[in-house]
Amino acid sequence: MKKVGIGLLGLGTVGKGVANIINNPNDRHPLVGELELVGVAVRNLQKKRDIIIPDSILTTNPIEIVTNPNIQIIVEVMGGIEPAKSLIIQAIRAGKSVVTANKAVIARHGEEISNEAKAAGVYVLIEAAVGGGIPIIEPVKQSLGGNQITKVSGIINGTTNYILSRMDKEGVDYADVLKDAQELGYAESDPAADVEGSDAADKIAILSGLAFGGSINRSNIPTTGINHLEAVDVNYARKLGYGIKLLAISEKDKSPSKTEGSQPLSIWVEPTLVPEDNPLAGVNGVNNAILVEGNPIGQVMFFGPGAGSGPTASAVVADILNIAGIQSMSEDNIFNLDPLLSAMSWRNCHVAEKKQITKKNYIRLIANDSPGVIGEIGTIFGKKKISIESIVQFDVTDEEAEIVVITHKIQQGQLEEALLEIKNLSQVKRIAATMGCL
Amino acid sequence: MKKVGIGLLGLGTVGKGVANIINNPNDRHPLVGELELVGVAVRNLQKKRDIIIPDSILTTNPIEIVTNPNIQIIVEVMGGIEPAKSLIIQAIRAGKSVVTANKAVIARHGEEISNEAKAAGVYVLIEAAVGGGIPIIEPVKQSLGGNQITKVSGIINGTTNYILSRMDKEGVDYADVLKDAQELGYAESDPAADVEGSDAADKIAILSGLAFGGSINRSNIPTTGINHLEAVDVNYARKLGYGIKLLAISEKDKSPSKTEGSQPLSIWVEPTLVPEDNPLAGVNGVNNAILVEGNPIGQVMFFGPGAGSGPTASAVVADILNIAGIQSMSEDNIFNLDPLLSAMSWRNCHVAEKKQITKKNYIRLIANDSPGVIGEIGTIFGKKKISIESIVQFDVTDEEAEIVVITHKIQQGQLEEALLEIKNLSQVKRIAATMGCL
Repeated sequence: MKKVGIGLLGLGTVGKGVANIINNPNDRHPLVGELELVGVAVRNLQKKRDIIIPDSILTTNPIEIVTNPNIQIIVEVMGGIEPAKSLIIQAIRAGKSVVTANKAVIARHGEEISNEAKAAGVYVLIEAAVGGGIPIIEPVKQSLGGNQITKVSGIINGTTNYILSRMDKEGVDYADVLKDAQELGYAESDPAADVEGSDAADKIAILSGLAFGGSINRSNIPTTGINHLEAVDVNYARKLGYGIKLLAISEKDKSPSKTEGSQPLSIWVEPTLVPEDNPLAGVNGVNNAILVEGNPIGQVMFFGPGAGSGPTASAVVADILNIAGIQSMSEDNIFNLDPLLSAMSWRNCHVAEKKQITKKNYIRLIANDSPGVIGEIGTIFGKKKISIESIVQFDVTDEEAEIVVITHKIQQGQLEEALLEIKNLSQVKRIAATMGCL
Repeated sequence: MKKVGIGLLGLGTVGKGVANIINNPNDRHPLVGELELVGVAVRNLQKKRDIIIPDSILTTNPIEIVTNPNIQIIVEVMGGIEPAKSLIIQAIRAGKSVVTANKAVIARHGEEISNEAKAAGVYVLIEAAVGGGIPIIEPVKQSLGGNQITKVSGIINGTTNYILSRMDKEGVDYADVLKDAQELGYAESDPAADVEGSDAADKIAILSGLAFGGSINRSNIPTTGINHLEAVDVNYARKLGYGIKLLAISEKDKSPSKTEGSQPLSIWVEPTLVPEDNPLAGVNGVNNAILVEGNPIGQVMFFGPGAGSGPTASAVVADILNIAGIQSMSEDNIFNLDPLLSAMSWRNCHVAEKKQITKKNYIRLIANDSPGVIGEIGTIFGKKKISIESIVQFDVTDEEAEIVVITHKIQQGQLEEALLEIKNLSQVKRIAATMGCL
């Protein structure tokens, strides 16, 4: 077998991890030994790196890599939208399959890239874009296709899960943990994409597209991060038997679709109370866990390291091997794409309106400490047909009380109407927090 | 695309589940719609079944199915060693790919079947043989190949996990729960393969072969079931902060191999104490969970329903779709096998001797309730260089005490020598139980 030429775009932590695997094939699947690193695009040739790459294959010109005739698979691990996206498109047009860890590009331009790949007859594989090292993309594409998928959900951002785990364990505030996480390298110096939920929204858009078979308009996903989460809510949640996790959830919307021929999906990202006996409650630190539910499988969970050089490199190499394996099936490489691995859309999907999301809720109110207030709140919820699981009053001062309400499953439209009325009660000072609840 | 002809051998719970998916393709991957049930072999044509299958495709002669030119994929879900094994071989020789849920056949005759499949250029896929609906075989084959795998372990028998979960929760004896489990359909009327650990040994043999790349002599796997487990051990384990799970474990043996050119693996099946904070401790009922550890991925876990008609059918259909997808790549089907999906051995492996297994242990002794006995036991362990984590004495009667010892990690050879000496102590009446401990 002729060696499979690999071109790396980027030699950061993930790129180095990939190079390390390719350069040390011993004790791995023998197909790893058939891979050869032919070219690596870097920003700075002079930079000291703790990995040995021959100077002859380094270049600062990524175009050289995507057009190199000795390269069959392009691995894009540079990150960011541009020039990553353009290079992916150029590689596809040059007839090369692409492996990328770039969730931001795939979540925003996945459909365009997928169409380009189809036209060129090449693969674009993205195992590393979601869940770090956890095999989740390939199982959804290749192992769950017999199911009617109803829901995909989970913890898919390692940085926020690390921060939440520490807030819960140490009872400290978000800002304190964030600073520490940045110093330890678990959070970026600009943490916005992680803590505001945008990274998780990218990933749930990608997972939804694969699980439900239609591309998702990522900008329609209601997204709340953990950056406004207060220690007091972590504390109250724990007292009520819950931990707080940043969950990304995507489920089939059962209400009648207003868009003919398109499957509505309720998709959202939000800090969510998770009961202590739920398997997600035990997922701590930078670990991720993804639940897939469907008929007839029931529920399966995939758990593991959601980030890091090694795990992410493992996922990138998984994709490289899948392509190399298929390419080894024929000398001339002239055949159709495998419909599972290429994962084209097979129907239209759209993100349902936020007010249609149906879920349990956690609401914390600041109110006067007067005997009638719980009754008034209960009356408004009752009028709006919102069934309440519990109302608990935590006294803060002599005059002020904090009231925590946990609802049963209700549509968000109903909840918003009720909260508007509750906000106008003279006894109620403000609605201090709202979150989801499993 | 021409429809892909499917032949079913067996129409029991799994067979019916598969037929249900194929006959109701709506809302599943569109490739399901390309499958067509062409023939079904059953034992009794007259039997009433809660599924509609046209009489014209039913037969009592399975040879008709495996030789039918309109069938491309044979699905063997009849179970048992024969005639299942012979039919699989005949199907392969007739040029058909095979999907089977038959762990007993694969664990015992996997190498022979794999060689036949290679010679015929067809696939034999076995996702349903391990872990019920959990995608574990395909991820190990297709998503983890970049790793140096060091360990595969987990809970891979649903029946025993159901029994253990109930023993733990209700504090009742094995025999009582077994009877109940049989009545509820969670255990077979002849439960031997499950409760004696043989089913788990079949499955860990299969997983080991795939993860470590060499076929495993299944009969060399030391196997202890749960059929001698007493309620008192479940009780003591809980007091010490552990649950008991039937674990199957396979790990690279680090001691020098006596067999040149062959990778030694420590593989065993045994009831094992699992700390309450270990992810496996929360796996209850008929659920399964499989941990895979390697470099650079770290640890990933796959969790879900380990048995049942629907989940197992989901796994069978996953395999069917993988083969159908590959077959759709070319009209004439003339190309090499995908080296990942076909999963050939790439090195020699062998099961290391039992005395080389290195693990923590739980030991319960019945002794006279005299002050010197713990000292004597401790002295013998010390002499054999066995480091002890804890010794706890539970008093049973005035004269008799139960002593529970938990060791640190030691080789089983050392432990056996120590236990021989301890058994001979005049104060010690008997060694009542030994188990593994995580």
